[in-house]
Amino acid sequence: MDFKKIVVKPLKEEFINLAWERLNNLTKPRGSLGRLEELAVQLVAIYESLEPTIKGKLVFVFAGDHGVVEEGVSAFPKEVTSQMVFNFLRGGAGINVLARFAGAEVRVVDVGVDYDFGKVDGLYDFKVCYGTKNLAREPAMSKEEAVKTIEVGYKLAQQAISQGYNLIGVGDMGIGNTTSSSAITSVITGKAVEEVTGRGTGISEETFLKKISVIKRAIELHQPNPQDPLDILAKVGGTEIGACAGVILACAEKGVPVVIDGFITTAGALIAYKINPSVKYYIIASHRSQERGHQVQLEYLGLNPLLDLNLRLGEGTGAALAMLLVEASLRIFNEMATFSSAGVSTAHS
Amino acid sequence: MDFKKIVVKPLKEEFINLAWERLNNLTKPRGSLGRLEELAVQLVAIYESLEPTIKGKLVFVFAGDHGVVEEGVSAFPKEVTSQMVFNFLRGGAGINVLARFAGAEVRVVDVGVDYDFGKVDGLYDFKVCYGTKNLAREPAMSKEEAVKTIEVGYKLAQQAISQGYNLIGVGDMGIGNTTSSSAITSVITGKAVEEVTGRGTGISEETFLKKISVIKRAIELHQPNPQDPLDILAKVGGTEIGACAGVILACAEKGVPVVIDGFITTAGALIAYKINPSVKYYIIASHRSQERGHQVQLEYLGLNPLLDLNLRLGEGTGAALAMLLVEASLRIFNEMATFSSAGVSTAHS
Repeated sequence: MDFKKIVVKPLKEEFINLAWERLNNLTKPRGSLGRLEELAVQLVAIYESLEPTIKGKLVFVFAGDHGVVEEGVSAFPKEVTSQMVFNFLRGGAGINVLARFAGAEVRVVDVGVDYDFGKVDGLYDFKVCYGTKNLAREPAMSKEEAVKTIEVGYKLAQQAISQGYNLIGVGDMGIGNTTSSSAITSVITGKAVEEVTGRGTGISEETFLKKISVIKRAIELHQPNPQDPLDILAKVGGTEIGACAGVILACAEKGVPVVIDGFITTAGALIAYKINPSVKYYIIASHRSQERGHQVQLEYLGLNPLLDLNLRLGEGTGAALAMLLVEASLRIFNEMATFSSAGVSTAHS
Repeated sequence: MDFKKIVVKPLKEEFINLAWERLNNLTKPRGSLGRLEELAVQLVAIYESLEPTIKGKLVFVFAGDHGVVEEGVSAFPKEVTSQMVFNFLRGGAGINVLARFAGAEVRVVDVGVDYDFGKVDGLYDFKVCYGTKNLAREPAMSKEEAVKTIEVGYKLAQQAISQGYNLIGVGDMGIGNTTSSSAITSVITGKAVEEVTGRGTGISEETFLKKISVIKRAIELHQPNPQDPLDILAKVGGTEIGACAGVILACAEKGVPVVIDGFITTAGALIAYKINPSVKYYIIASHRSQERGHQVQLEYLGLNPLLDLNLRLGEGTGAALAMLLVEASLRIFNEMATFSSAGVSTAHS
């Protein structure tokens, strides 16, 4: 499919103004609930409703392997990707715990894991490939595969929205995927590789330097076109990153807020943004990751994250936590008394 | 009573180490859940349990009036304190909404409101005085009254703990109370009044300058002794601030974590800290308020807040929100699978 044809509406001034009008009548000094108020305004404008309601929360966890792991860029062995998929399915991972707490369903999707799961209960099998190729030596994917990864996220999100979910988060699992995300981020934002590369799951100085040189070499080799998100995704991307981009595109098209997580999912947001910049109005940035390139991504997108808790786990854990704040902001909007209903005096004019 | 006699135990290394040991075995890169992990460690050490459990959450909202309002230092008229008490009792205020969402009970306490509530359902009537005196002209309270305000919080917290609540938050309501809090903060931290004074509920530049000069004048007039928290509380304090200090002392003594809110409750924490510095181990700083002196207070206490959402409402709203993160951290600690139970490989050594 041609993602360039997706229509994303800008948010309507009318709803933004009505939302502020209501917030300013609630029994609190104007603006005193800070980011919660801004969030409520965004949600009112996205839902186009003055009684914004969360009907169902869902976090997609997209899993994919990365051929570049053979260069020795990660602290964990590659098998961890498939092992963690089983952990997700049994409910023992960080995202399971936090999504349960936030009241969100978790859907675990194999987009590109290098493992034959066969039929496994609960696993969404949308495998595009058995892991990407080693981007240090050849393109990570073909262009057709790259398009397919976006379609996976796009279609799953459309399905979820048709099932009634109207707050959707994205998460990732893929050993090696910070390497791919750094490459994408450097190409799209134009920042030097050193400025957008961090220590992932926790690598040594030596591995860190190797990782930087691998990313530089890959960009040099493939010369991805900064204006062509599909070219970038194919050459240095990951299957889970493409799927995140697809979810973001579908949510923006359908008018559903989408909560991004850390460095990997925000790389997906960069791809989606390069396809259609209007997606940003529908994105909620959950947290500022400890992974250094994340701040560069957020600034490029003009997003201000809700939480800053030094998280760097991925899986959608930050997105699940932020869903609590999203819900809190709507509770404020819907449940607080107004000055007149509560008989409270307003400020001196 | 003599608060200097309260015994507060330091946290035990043994529990801190055991908590980290467990966290490091959970299926995630070490430390990758950042502040949530640190929070879990603090809670394990406070509860002295490797199965830390929240049995009941409670937020106290202490209300009191401030004679200094007659100097024209606030954007809202004084009646708002009592009007908001009714709003709290009817469940329409920000703290009601957020505490409901966080699953916390709210107890509204009249410590010093200048209004005769008579018998009102749901109101905890512990009135020490009908508002403080105007601290610009005379001491806000007598020393006996100041002690009584601390006792109110101390006894109510002891009662709540005996009822099974083991996560307690503090909130405030009192038109004019940022003026009092700035005075306390300047005296205790030694910072200039200008550095610890903000715009409260939202005052004009003119009122702001007046507020600073009122605070300077009060400190000049009363010369509160920076080493004597009761002297400070009596001369430039507020009844709700004393009550917050009392809650913090009781929680620390009984080994219950206490969640502070913004600028006013942290002024209460400063008073409690000057009575017994070990209380800080039991304090959870919920958020960084937009009120400028809050950061000075937090640095003085060595506390790093969980949230930074530009809140400046008070009432305990930030504390209620942070309780969600406190609970999330314990869910992670108690519910996540370990590397061995999940069959996930660990990092390369």
